Amino acid sequence: MSETLTIALAAMSGDLGAKTAVEAAVSFTKKYPDVRIILVGDDSVMPEMSGHDRIVVQHASEIVTMDDALSQALRNKKDSSMRVAINQVHEGKADACVSCGNTGALMAIARFVLKTLPGIDRPAIITAIPNINGHVQMLDLGANVDCSADNLYQFAIMGAALAAVVDNIDTPRVGLLNIGSEDIKGNELVKEAGKLLEASDLNYIGFVEGNEIYMGDVDVVVADGFVGNVALKTSEGVAKLIKSYLKQEFTRSPLSKVMGLVASPVLKKLATRIDPDRYNGASLLGLKGIVIKSHGNAGVVALENALAIARLEAKENLISLINTYIETKLIQSSA
Amino acid sequence: MSETLTIALAAMSGDLGAKTAVEAAVSFTKKYPDVRIILVGDDSVMPEMSGHDRIVVQHASEIVTMDDALSQALRNKKDSSMRVAINQVHEGKADACVSCGNTGALMAIARFVLKTLPGIDRPAIITAIPNINGHVQMLDLGANVDCSADNLYQFAIMGAALAAVVDNIDTPRVGLLNIGSEDIKGNELVKEAGKLLEASDLNYIGFVEGNEIYMGDVDVVVADGFVGNVALKTSEGVAKLIKSYLKQEFTRSPLSKVMGLVASPVLKKLATRIDPDRYNGASLLGLKGIVIKSHGNAGVVALENALAIARLEAKENLISLINTYIETKLIQSSA
Repeated sequence: MSETLTIALAAMSGDLGAKTAVEAAVSFTKKYPDVRIILVGDDSVMPEMSGHDRIVVQHASEIVTMDDALSQALRNKKDSSMRVAINQVHEGKADACVSCGNTGALMAIARFVLKTLPGIDRPAIITAIPNINGHVQMLDLGANVDCSADNLYQFAIMGAALAAVVDNIDTPRVGLLNIGSEDIKGNELVKEAGKLLEASDLNYIGFVEGNEIYMGDVDVVVADGFVGNVALKTSEGVAKLIKSYLKQEFTRSPLSKVMGLVASPVLKKLATRIDPDRYNGASLLGLKGIVIKSHGNAGVVALENALAIARLEAKENLISLINTYIETKLIQSSA
Repeated sequence: MSETLTIALAAMSGDLGAKTAVEAAVSFTKKYPDVRIILVGDDSVMPEMSGHDRIVVQHASEIVTMDDALSQALRNKKDSSMRVAINQVHEGKADACVSCGNTGALMAIARFVLKTLPGIDRPAIITAIPNINGHVQMLDLGANVDCSADNLYQFAIMGAALAAVVDNIDTPRVGLLNIGSEDIKGNELVKEAGKLLEASDLNYIGFVEGNEIYMGDVDVVVADGFVGNVALKTSEGVAKLIKSYLKQEFTRSPLSKVMGLVASPVLKKLATRIDPDRYNGASLLGLKGIVIKSHGNAGVVALENALAIARLEAKENLISLINTYIETKLIQSSA
């Protein structure tokens, strides 16, 4: 009925190592009968997987660490689990790959091995973040710190294609992150990018301010990698702050502790809703292949979320849609 | 004993108008016997204040609206409550002024009337935001969208002086907002500013990421106005999102409603801690006078917070300390 999708999972690079990757692969293949997983890691530490007919192990002798310089990871670690996983995609043996490793190294290796799509100057990183109605996609999250207006325009194209596929939205509303909604506000970069987007046939809704990321009126928020990363990390910081305030308030006195106990089922639901694990899995967009970056400290549940994104992008053929968007939206509107 | 401090309050420019300003002035002067307030607004709508011996009314016939272009506000509204309040400071009749009006107009008029301090190329906007230990000062929040490394360095100097005075910290820890703590990360602007700050004798602790704004390990966070504004607005958005999640979860079922009722005293305390009103009052730094911007929709309590900041900066002679910092820290370390 449905074809089998193969995901290469770099099993050595997360903080939690091969054990977590193996558990996630076993659990995920049980849930999704259409998925086959190539666990990429050191043969000598990987457990025997012969009992699992949709999981195979692919040997890789090296590991890219968080401390490795990009050049080191790229030139001297050609047999790292990260690179071998990307190679599986490049060689057509996998439809997507997932890694918990160093973002910079992952981007550099993916770009080197897979190359960027025609029309895309620089790949970008995108992830879903929760908003009042569900979630919103935001890019770039740090791959490109000094951007041109053309870069932002290309990010918008790719982000819209991703939202169309992953969120099943026909014409995603695209907003440009700025510090005011008036045309005169903002820095030179966003003003120029705004003009390009106005002229495009994307569903461009104009500038959005930081607070509007969360209001549910936009599907894709575009920013340069510096601003996008600050917005994402700041959001994580605020969520953590409020969580710690809640804890402080509910443990302040014996009475407030009782109140906390009574309210705990609801507080747990809240904690789940702001849990970053639910949104684990950022996509590297603009490459000739699907590459998903998972948090380094991802547990089994978080890693399965990243696998689910890889599966969906492969199943819906994201790369082909991005190519179509580039051909029909980017080139036409730039002409 | 203590000398009287005079604060000029532009009473017409907030969304809530003169009534809120009058109430805040009455309440504030009761709390602070050392404060005298000049209520600047239209004589014909201001109530009779003769019963209050430390409140006087200064007539101003015009209002700068949120829609006024900067040039309009600056050139054609010379008798606006905003401008007359700033004039009070310029003429030595007030020690500080507070306005709820249009930020851009306030900055433009303040800069035109008061001028910038020697050594400061551009004024910046700073405010306190809550963190795990209390609060942290962050600047610039949107006055300067395209900055040079020198601008950021000057912001750091001014922010440190403000934290010394307002937060009573001897050597405030200054951090530069960036997307990674390693030296190689970040855009060209922050890398260059980082070098200037390394060479300064400020208590510079290096780069901080978005989440670190809230962790309590830094007293002053420096960013260009675009990034700072995005970080601030994003934070407001997340706080609002979590507040609405809490409300949703506590009203989902009859049972959760009961839990919410039981927990409501604690939830109210939480709401107070993340209430932006508590931190109302942003300072325009780098001018030859104290100018405080209040939220446009500030109620009485919020406006009193802004007045309290004006009072503290005047009482502790912030402008003189900034001058000292510029002379001893900026010029020496640039030489």
